Amino acid sequence: MAESPVIPIVGGTGALGAGLARRWAAAGASIVIGSRSEERAEGAAAKLRAEVPDANAEGLLNEEAAKRAEIVFLTVPFRAQSENLNNLREALQPGQILVDCTVPLAAAVSGKATRSLGVWQGSAAQQAQEMVPDGVTVVAALHTVGAPTLADADADLDEDVPVCGDRKADKARVAKLIELIPGLRAVNAGPLEMARIVEQLTPLLISINTRYKTHAGIRLTGLPDDNHWQ
Amino acid sequence: MAESPVIPIVGGTGALGAGLARRWAAAGASIVIGSRSEERAEGAAAKLRAEVPDANAEGLLNEEAAKRAEIVFLTVPFRAQSENLNNLREALQPGQILVDCTVPLAAAVSGKATRSLGVWQGSAAQQAQEMVPDGVTVVAALHTVGAPTLADADADLDEDVPVCGDRKADKARVAKLIELIPGLRAVNAGPLEMARIVEQLTPLLISINTRYKTHAGIRLTGLPDDNHWQ
Repeated sequence: MAESPVIPIVGGTGALGAGLARRWAAAGASIVIGSRSEERAEGAAAKLRAEVPDANAEGLLNEEAAKRAEIVFLTVPFRAQSENLNNLREALQPGQILVDCTVPLAAAVSGKATRSLGVWQGSAAQQAQEMVPDGVTVVAALHTVGAPTLADADADLDEDVPVCGDRKADKARVAKLIELIPGLRAVNAGPLEMARIVEQLTPLLISINTRYKTHAGIRLTGLPDDNHWQ
Repeated sequence: MAESPVIPIVGGTGALGAGLARRWAAAGASIVIGSRSEERAEGAAAKLRAEVPDANAEGLLNEEAAKRAEIVFLTVPFRAQSENLNNLREALQPGQILVDCTVPLAAAVSGKATRSLGVWQGSAAQQAQEMVPDGVTVVAALHTVGAPTLADADADLDEDVPVCGDRKADKARVAKLIELIPGLRAVNAGPLEMARIVEQLTPLLISINTRYKTHAGIRLTGLPDDNHWQ
């Protein structure tokens, strides 16, 4: 990986995407914010450059953003996931990794944010794997990192990010990008099918947040100190 | 709660039940180990008395054990959960709390321990709530605390225990018992329906344990320091 990786974020004008963009920009990565609207993408990039000194950020249409690096992050609400994946069919190329951050909250259909929708394929990430072009690999991650915490420049992060995918080498590349953000540790949670469980951590945290009036995160205890990803 | 609470454990001869019994006995609680076999229950109680100096432990048939305190723990494998609940129909009385620790692992039907079975009611705990006599309340807890860690007297625990139930007062009583064990913090995870998610944490941890060759636990970060249960 180059010293300053390029990180395209499809749906980067949303709360999660913007929060990740801010943290990655502060860590020195070059951010490509994607949106369905070029104007909104450019606006979000300008805001990011204003907020983070020396930020390297540009705004593009999602389809253009997705061509800018091998690893592309998808941070859209569940109700927009299928539409976005359809729009990316011509843009994504074999060899690329799509990091799906989608959580199938029942809020997508006006239900509770503490409940989730059943996805026929098992999880939103598995739905994404079905929809991407042949040769594109889906890795699932970043479901449990809260947008408000990411957006709060004064908030220190201190949590783990379960990463699901069928090949450790793919997950290791994504883990490197995740761990550019101080306070985040990427944890190998197993194959992509484990996204069925990991995506459910978000409604669990929302339920806990309601009760404790906080923004909780997840930590795994008892993991060895050595670098799992090397 | 008395200084030395009585804690009945239905299925207390199994790995999870025995591990909890050992920790609670060391913390000064009086343990009632339940089993389908009185002989096995008495054997497990004798073993506990031998291992933990001054342990107060006895072994009884499950149905007798369940009558010994208002709060009863059920620590049987999923494949035995329904049978045990059927057997407890005459024993449990209105006002009692049954703490269900069951995890519907696919291993119950010779599947993988990293996969789970769909339970029609939503979760094993909700199945338990359907099966207990009227007036008995189910609380779900202790899914993620590993039996090997509990059994290892030299292992320090350092993890959270998500607790699900429909009334905070019930959960608070269960939390007090859980927190008798040093290193465990009970976290209010919401209503009983959240057991759908919390029960899935076990196969997630099993998946992580396989990859890291460890016994991982769960921690929630960002919770306030005050005592939620007071």
